Amino acid sequence: MNMPYKIIDLSHILNENATLYPDTVGPKFEVINNVAEHGFMEMQATMVLHSGTHIDAPCHILQDTKSISDFPIEKFIGPAIVIPCGDMKEISLSYLKTFESRIAEVDFVIFFTGWQYKWNSDAYFDNCPTPTQEAARWLAQFNLKGIGIDAFSVDPVVSAHKVTPENLPNHYILLEKDMILIENLTNLDKLPEGVFTFQCLPINIENADGSPVRAMAMI
Amino acid sequence: MNMPYKIIDLSHILNENATLYPDTVGPKFEVINNVAEHGFMEMQATMVLHSGTHIDAPCHILQDTKSISDFPIEKFIGPAIVIPCGDMKEISLSYLKTFESRIAEVDFVIFFTGWQYKWNSDAYFDNCPTPTQEAARWLAQFNLKGIGIDAFSVDPVVSAHKVTPENLPNHYILLEKDMILIENLTNLDKLPEGVFTFQCLPINIENADGSPVRAMAMI
Repeated sequence: MNMPYKIIDLSHILNENATLYPDTVGPKFEVINNVAEHGFMEMQATMVLHSGTHIDAPCHILQDTKSISDFPIEKFIGPAIVIPCGDMKEISLSYLKTFESRIAEVDFVIFFTGWQYKWNSDAYFDNCPTPTQEAARWLAQFNLKGIGIDAFSVDPVVSAHKVTPENLPNHYILLEKDMILIENLTNLDKLPEGVFTFQCLPINIENADGSPVRAMAMI
Repeated sequence: MNMPYKIIDLSHILNENATLYPDTVGPKFEVINNVAEHGFMEMQATMVLHSGTHIDAPCHILQDTKSISDFPIEKFIGPAIVIPCGDMKEISLSYLKTFESRIAEVDFVIFFTGWQYKWNSDAYFDNCPTPTQEAARWLAQFNLKGIGIDAFSVDPVVSAHKVTPENLPNHYILLEKDMILIENLTNLDKLPEGVFTFQCLPINIENADGSPVRAMAMI
């Protein structure tokens, strides 16, 4: 049946070779039953919930804040705009202000850095453009559901062994406002200039700090 | 922002107490990093991909057929109807035929057996109404993307140690047509009588035989 909207898949494929945040544990997928021997195939996944394209919930970084299962499903869907940031070193407040009227209208702001093209290569670890703290604080004033990016993070990449409030400032600023962060998005080049519907429905794992997601745009 | 549609969450919450298909391995969720010690929380999930509300891909039962990652994202969204089956022992061809014109118009047919109310109780293991083989073969002639149910399965429940083509006939009949099966749905009582948009986007795990999903209706 023809659908009254166009759909764009915004998630990377997930396998054991997926690009990993430094010093984190990679996902494992093991076939524990197969059709020939057992009559059915069954794959067992062992993975941290921040594998591949995924969401951070506030409790990923901030104690006593919301987990994935604390939000209603409406948290994960809504109007969005994509902001091109490919040719800049950082995302400044003055640049974001040029999108102010549109940011005020949507639930999600998505940064298109071009890092999606570097997935599964060493260049993905280079620091992508991220909001300045001033820009992040300004964004945090809007009634947004979340912020997305086609890179590891809205903060410069650090080792997971060295996470502190000081080196992930934008996480703190945005998660404190109960925003979710959507990381490792792709296909952002296929999104329109105007407003579209974005969604990133997590698996509803109780008290989870995040979830891999099949993010999608409906246009 | 107000959305131009109503959303209904059709997935159970997933935790280590989730009701398990007989003789299958239950999911484990372990917090391997926490904010106090490591600066961030990280939960590691170990689970077969048929945990909680989930999809079966054809390769779950049939060798050399499609896995989750073989389908485009459009496979997992489309118009749907729900068919009430609460007060019958089996779902007969003659009953399904009363929905024929609507089945021909949609991508997904969802059986509401009432088993959703028995989730997390022993009664969930009782056999729910399932299509007769004759009814399943008739359904398989339609150009459907998938069949959903608020119970373990469209076949009577067996031990996972004893799966054969004979005791899962409806799986064979439907998966052979490249349909997906969506199992352990809930909140089907909240769906309208008419057509609505159903979606069940899987995590795009390469070559996976299934995926937990956050199924959703948009009305």
